[in-house]
Amino acid sequence: MKRVLIIHGPNLNLLGTREPETYGNQSLADIDKSLIERGKTLGLSVETFQSNHEGNIVDKIQTAQTCHGIIINPAAYTHTSIAIRDALLILDIPVIEVHLSNIYKRETFRHHSMISDVVTGKIVGLGHQGYHLALEAINSSISD
Amino acid sequence: MKRVLIIHGPNLNLLGTREPETYGNQSLADIDKSLIERGKTLGLSVETFQSNHEGNIVDKIQTAQTCHGIIINPAAYTHTSIAIRDALLILDIPVIEVHLSNIYKRETFRHHSMISDVVTGKIVGLGHQGYHLALEAINSSISD
Amino acid sequence: MKRVLIIHGPNLNLLGTREPETYGNQSLADIDKSLIERGKTLGLSVETFQSNHEGNIVDKIQTAQTCHGIIINPAAYTHTSIAIRDALLILDIPVIEVHLSNIYKRETFRHHSMISDVVTGKIVGLGHQGYHLALEAINSSISD
Amino acid sequence: MKRVLIIHGPNLNLLGTREPETYGNQSLADIDKSLIERGKTLGLSVETFQSNHEGNIVDKIQTAQTCHGIIINPAAYTHTSIAIRDALLILDIPVIEVHLSNIYKRETFRHHSMISDVVTGKIVGLGHQGYHLALEAINSSISD
Amino acid sequence: MKRVLIIHGPNLNLLGTREPETYGNQSLADIDKSLIERGKTLGLSVETFQSNHEGNIVDKIQTAQTCHGIIINPAAYTHTSIAIRDALLILDIPVIEVHLSNIYKRETFRHHSMISDVVTGKIVGLGHQGYHLALEAINSSISD
Amino acid sequence: MKRVLIIHGPNLNLLGTREPETYGNQSLADIDKSLIERGKTLGLSVETFQSNHEGNIVDKIQTAQTCHGIIINPAAYTHTSIAIRDALLILDIPVIEVHLSNIYKRETFRHHSMISDVVTGKIVGLGHQGYHLALEAINSSISD
Amino acid sequence: MKRVLIIHGPNLNLLGTREPETYGNQSLADIDKSLIERGKTLGLSVETFQSNHEGNIVDKIQTAQTCHGIIINPAAYTHTSIAIRDALLILDIPVIEVHLSNIYKRETFRHHSMISDVVTGKIVGLGHQGYHLALEAINSSISD
Amino acid sequence: MKRVLIIHGPNLNLLGTREPETYGNQSLADIDKSLIERGKTLGLSVETFQSNHEGNIVDKIQTAQTCHGIIINPAAYTHTSIAIRDALLILDIPVIEVHLSNIYKRETFRHHSMISDVVTGKIVGLGHQGYHLALEAINSSISD
Amino acid sequence: MKRVLIIHGPNLNLLGTREPETYGNQSLADIDKSLIERGKTLGLSVETFQSNHEGNIVDKIQTAQTCHGIIINPAAYTHTSIAIRDALLILDIPVIEVHLSNIYKRETFRHHSMISDVVTGKIVGLGHQGYHLALEAINSSISD
Amino acid sequence: MKRVLIIHGPNLNLLGTREPETYGNQSLADIDKSLIERGKTLGLSVETFQSNHEGNIVDKIQTAQTCHGIIINPAAYTHTSIAIRDALLILDIPVIEVHLSNIYKRETFRHHSMISDVVTGKIVGLGHQGYHLALEAINSSISD
Amino acid sequence: MKRVLIIHGPNLNLLGTREPETYGNQSLADIDKSLIERGKTLGLSVETFQSNHEGNIVDKIQTAQTCHGIIINPAAYTHTSIAIRDALLILDIPVIEVHLSNIYKRETFRHHSMISDVVTGKIVGLGHQGYHLALEAINSSISD
Amino acid sequence: MKRVLIIHGPNLNLLGTREPETYGNQSLADIDKSLIERGKTLGLSVETFQSNHEGNIVDKIQTAQTCHGIIINPAAYTHTSIAIRDALLILDIPVIEVHLSNIYKRETFRHHSMISDVVTGKIVGLGHQGYHLALEAINSSISD
Repeated sequence: MKRVLIIHGPNLNLLGTREPETYGNQSLADIDKSLIERGKTLGLSVETFQSNHEGNIVDKIQTAQTCHGIIINPAAYTHTSIAIRDALLILDIPVIEVHLSNIYKRETFRHHSMISDVVTGKIVGLGHQGYHLALEAINSSISD
Repeated sequence: MKRVLIIHGPNLNLLGTREPETYGNQSLADIDKSLIERGKTLGLSVETFQSNHEGNIVDKIQTAQTCHGIIINPAAYTHTSIAIRDALLILDIPVIEVHLSNIYKRETFRHHSMISDVVTGKIVGLGHQGYHLALEAINSSISD
Repeated sequence: MKRVLIIHGPNLNLLGTREPETYGNQSLADIDKSLIERGKTLGLSVETFQSNHEGNIVDKIQTAQTCHGIIINPAAYTHTSIAIRDALLILDIPVIEVHLSNIYKRETFRHHSMISDVVTGKIVGLGHQGYHLALEAINSSISD
Repeated sequence: MKRVLIIHGPNLNLLGTREPETYGNQSLADIDKSLIERGKTLGLSVETFQSNHEGNIVDKIQTAQTCHGIIINPAAYTHTSIAIRDALLILDIPVIEVHLSNIYKRETFRHHSMISDVVTGKIVGLGHQGYHLALEAINSSISD
Repeated sequence: MKRVLIIHGPNLNLLGTREPETYGNQSLADIDKSLIERGKTLGLSVETFQSNHEGNIVDKIQTAQTCHGIIINPAAYTHTSIAIRDALLILDIPVIEVHLSNIYKRETFRHHSMISDVVTGKIVGLGHQGYHLALEAINSSISD
Repeated sequence: MKRVLIIHGPNLNLLGTREPETYGNQSLADIDKSLIERGKTLGLSVETFQSNHEGNIVDKIQTAQTCHGIIINPAAYTHTSIAIRDALLILDIPVIEVHLSNIYKRETFRHHSMISDVVTGKIVGLGHQGYHLALEAINSSISD
Repeated sequence: MKRVLIIHGPNLNLLGTREPETYGNQSLADIDKSLIERGKTLGLSVETFQSNHEGNIVDKIQTAQTCHGIIINPAAYTHTSIAIRDALLILDIPVIEVHLSNIYKRETFRHHSMISDVVTGKIVGLGHQGYHLALEAINSSISD
Repeated sequence: MKRVLIIHGPNLNLLGTREPETYGNQSLADIDKSLIERGKTLGLSVETFQSNHEGNIVDKIQTAQTCHGIIINPAAYTHTSIAIRDALLILDIPVIEVHLSNIYKRETFRHHSMISDVVTGKIVGLGHQGYHLALEAINSSISD
Repeated sequence: MKRVLIIHGPNLNLLGTREPETYGNQSLADIDKSLIERGKTLGLSVETFQSNHEGNIVDKIQTAQTCHGIIINPAAYTHTSIAIRDALLILDIPVIEVHLSNIYKRETFRHHSMISDVVTGKIVGLGHQGYHLALEAINSSISD
Repeated sequence: MKRVLIIHGPNLNLLGTREPETYGNQSLADIDKSLIERGKTLGLSVETFQSNHEGNIVDKIQTAQTCHGIIINPAAYTHTSIAIRDALLILDIPVIEVHLSNIYKRETFRHHSMISDVVTGKIVGLGHQGYHLALEAINSSISD
Repeated sequence: MKRVLIIHGPNLNLLGTREPETYGNQSLADIDKSLIERGKTLGLSVETFQSNHEGNIVDKIQTAQTCHGIIINPAAYTHTSIAIRDALLILDIPVIEVHLSNIYKRETFRHHSMISDVVTGKIVGLGHQGYHLALEAINSSISD
Repeated sequence: MKRVLIIHGPNLNLLGTREPETYGNQSLADIDKSLIERGKTLGLSVETFQSNHEGNIVDKIQTAQTCHGIIINPAAYTHTSIAIRDALLILDIPVIEVHLSNIYKRETFRHHSMISDVVTGKIVGLGHQGYHLALEAINSSISD
């Protein structure tokens, strides 16, 4: 069974409680659960992970060398973390960057991502569905 | 039956002949055909359109006021066209921006989009599948 | 009878339907009609023109070599069109740039105009009246 | 009878003596006189004011809370005065910014105005007639 | 009893040993003790926290949803941490940013703060007293 | 008795009438009165001064060579006045810069202060209380 | 017989009437005629094309896939057209960029070309002769 | 007898008391006196003027239309005053800009002068002697 | 015996497995071992440390106050960490910054280091040998 | 017989040995010889010169006051030498700037030339033929 | 007898022949002669030197360690030469930078000088007299 | 016997006399001598060279095509010389850039090097020892 790792960055553990009009009122646990189920449907083993610590996210990515794909929403670290970029650079599997909200409608410093040029693709502004579409895309590219 | 308009910008009419290692060897006609079929499956009437002329794209978007969603890959005009941005601003339906290749791996002037902050969402770097995922996303948001 | 050409840029054909609280609810046809009438009062033959195509606007300006004045609201092309600038540079008649809304209250990229330094004058933020004031100004300078 | 205040910034007291080929040879007194007369025709009480002192202009604007409109040509202070901007921000009446010459043909530092995004509209490059058109515009908006 | 959380960023645990001529020779423990005492006088329960880890500070802020106010000196993270900014954005209580030294006398990269536009207020350059004034300010705004 | 000079910059004379939801509805006279009283409590002789004229503020600061501390809110001149900076540079007493509103939530040009690197400390966004905290801080540093 | 396509951008149709002291008084028809003749001498079939429409120029370049070389003076579109750049990128034949006047003596925005790094070579400031030299250069490279 | 006006900008009235190691300990009165005497030697009537008010300096320059030369040290206003620049632009006599200290050794914002490109010449960093050399230079150019 | 601390930043724990053509195929353990041995030869006690966590690196540097020198390769944190810079600033011992690859041949954001101006020296692009040369340099400066 | 001077900048003496795939394998002597011969055909006396020294190139240009044209490839000095620019400015004869490779495909700092706006024309990216085309162009303009 | 070295940079050897309306028609020899004479009057031994070679100017400055003052007009090298700056930094005598024309009226790249912050003073725009005033200034400072 | 060339840029001939507290008081001759001796120990023939002339340094590098390694400290030319960069680009041997002082503690314009991305490695801030470490590094890479 092929394995996909889904990584959520800082403050995403508060999803559902934080600005529900923007982010919906599903908790992160709900979202993760539905992604794991979707994974099963696609024949994928999905692991999810959240941390507020840049170093933990780097550690986790390093463990993904045996995975077949990564979906990552680095949240605040998207815009500043070269360490996460470097960790992704070492991998040789499909990586999809996801952002729940449309970051281009927000502060200018959120428009630039430190990882966009090292990932396979990027899905922005489509809410929780973004993760599901990313899972589908990973699945397609793994199956090719 | 709900209607979705898919707009392809300049030089996309040459898909399949141009840099096949990057863009695949499906022609635009092939892609459009498969999108129309996918639309049918989802219960959507899909219209496709391509032009090398910024003005024609603006004209076309203006006709979309009766559509339920737009998928647009403005290609070269992504980075410079305020006229396309203004035409999209008038609409009040979901719009998804799609790019076949990962524009963040290319020249710096391709990193900025004149429309990203006025669309609903954005899908980048996932090849032809990007259009299909966008169709799915439009379908979800229309169905909500 | 002296001739004045009034050029409206992209998306202005939708005036009256688009953001009426900002642009009023007069259609472009209404505005053009009232400008032609005002022209008659002033003894001027007024021709109006709208296009979403940069090239058409350039073509039109090139025909204006026998006019006595131009009023131009290039809308989105204001900020990017060197071709329109070059076409205006060839003329040797008064040209007045008009913007309906106060572009300085909008996105930063709307603050710069590619033509301001090659026109005679500029009227911003005064709605439809801006065109009428421009017509008056053209009339004065022609009569001098 | 409605009241309009017209404010002229630094060095405009020398109009008529300074670069007549650019600014015409009417003195400021001549211009003010003709504006007061035009005001009478429109049923407006016009007060005019000139100062070389930023602080005096701020003081004067503060007195305008009982006026129905302001026309202001802040001249050199256009480009640097946040104090004038703040004074205008307190008012809740139409304000029109006027510049005699086409500032976009001059030094780059004259292209930016500290007040354009807080005024109603702006008229540039139309010489003394600019003030008259502004008076007309104020009159229209007051009459609405 | 109302609760206030005081957060000290990286390297502040060395206060008293580090550049005493700039930062005084009180240790962080001394300062925290005097703040807790001042809190008691004001009828506030004061909790203090220090960490060199950005992630720990984010974790801690997330626990503050039941506090009535936060005083935060993010030290080095002031200038780079979007994660801390995002954590603060979720809260709906008064937050005061404090810096012991006058950061505007130091390297240019210390002049910009990633959180200043999301906090209530900011106190800079007043040494340990800055924390006490912030406590007073929090107390006033809570009491209002 | 030690003397403290409090200087208010342009447009602050309209406090209480201007944007009361932001600045409160106390007049400047009320604020000055309460500061003078607080001064008495602390054993300080407080003098207050307001002007819309940069030159007057410079003149006033020059008279402060016999004071023991200055509190200054230069308002609009904060961002542009090198003359006020130079006047402060000549003094050798504590100076505290105060801003009523959180200037970092406002236009970008308000984020930079011409005096921050030459004052002792800075208090931002705490409304009228900011002046009182500054007075306390001046008092402490004078008493040291 | 080998084929060369020569493309003239916007406003070049007015050559001979526009700023003759700069551009000479030959019309575009004259120039095209002499280039076709020169082509014959070199054994080349020369086709010429002019348009004020960016989209038309893109359409035309797409037809050049069977040519052996292109000479292009995109005029105003030189500085802004990514669509023309993209169309040229698809071709695999020598392309020479020509400018009649010395663009480096003109406005700063004319100094940058969107196509210089994707063409073979560039000839600037040598008037009509520039096209002839370009034809010679194409001829040499085709003959190699 | 030819007339020369010498203008000193803000805070120069404190010369001799302010940073004597940099500016020497002569008072402005001493310097003015020695310049008037030097003027007499050269057969020039020298008038001196100092103000902390930008507006006063503009007023004064406007009176200089009957002078034969101006020496001006605008101090802090050097870097920001367009009003002073505009007042100088109206004159048609030699103007020499003087700075006592070497402004290029100081803060970056002091390196740019708003008037350098409209004066005849500039003397920097030579202390009080700078004024004397300027007087000599004015004298030469008047005598030519 | 004198003590030297060697700190390796994020992702360096994967040395030998990551881009071996660039970084060689020695593991970090191999490198550390050889550095400890070299240290013995020089009479130095060498301690090595690696972490993916910025906060851990700060914590570790704080423990180095009793060391005689530090060699640090902050990897990704080189370019963004003010916290590491601040921790180094507190120490008063020689510090040498080492980079294995030539960072000037890589992405622009790797060209700037947040610590270069607070370390003693810097060795770049010499692979593992860089650490050995740094150890030699530390040894010399300690022995002076 | 008319005289043309051809100047080659630094490192061009190594042509033929350096990156032959880019620059061809003709030596500079070969190229110079063929240019002198071409000159003879055109009735021109051609002198060639190469130096690695900026000063020598300036000296040489100063001797060209009796020439009828200059062709110059300043190589590395193209981008930095104001001295060469100034020397060219003194001449009143046609000057053509030549670059062998397409400098717009290389490092950004090679895109700007210090002399382009003071020469007659510029030929880029056409290899050795560029010199021959330049000679032809000089010949035409001399013959006009 | 005290010694002063006067250094003229590239192209100044052509003074009198180059743009006489700007630079006058005195040759450099004439100017040097009059400076040597003026030196004698002041009791100074004046040596003059001109070169088009940056290296020669550096060599010459290195010989000046026994002089009592330097006057230098580095011409084109003013704006780019760090080598000349470094050579001047080694000296401990008064240095005055002179420019004949007003460089602030010329191209932007001439506004910045690489040496202004390491010289004593600077005289700009006063033609040949600038050298004489500089000599006077050197003489004063030597005599102090 | 393998050969290494060591090149010292402008003003380094004054080492030992210039700012001894920064650069030590060894003369360049002393340093060169010790490097030649160290070379002998390593079995390398070391040649040293110093010049204040950019052109001479380029000439010298061109002669190094038969060397096995270069150590270069281009001093002031580090930051501006494209000619030296181009000369180094032609070579295919290890090159190490050395700077005696920590250039990152000095003026901003010294932080950028025109050659760092074309050399093998770089050693900064380690004084004379930097040359010795570079020699060791060259030796290792030659021996590999």
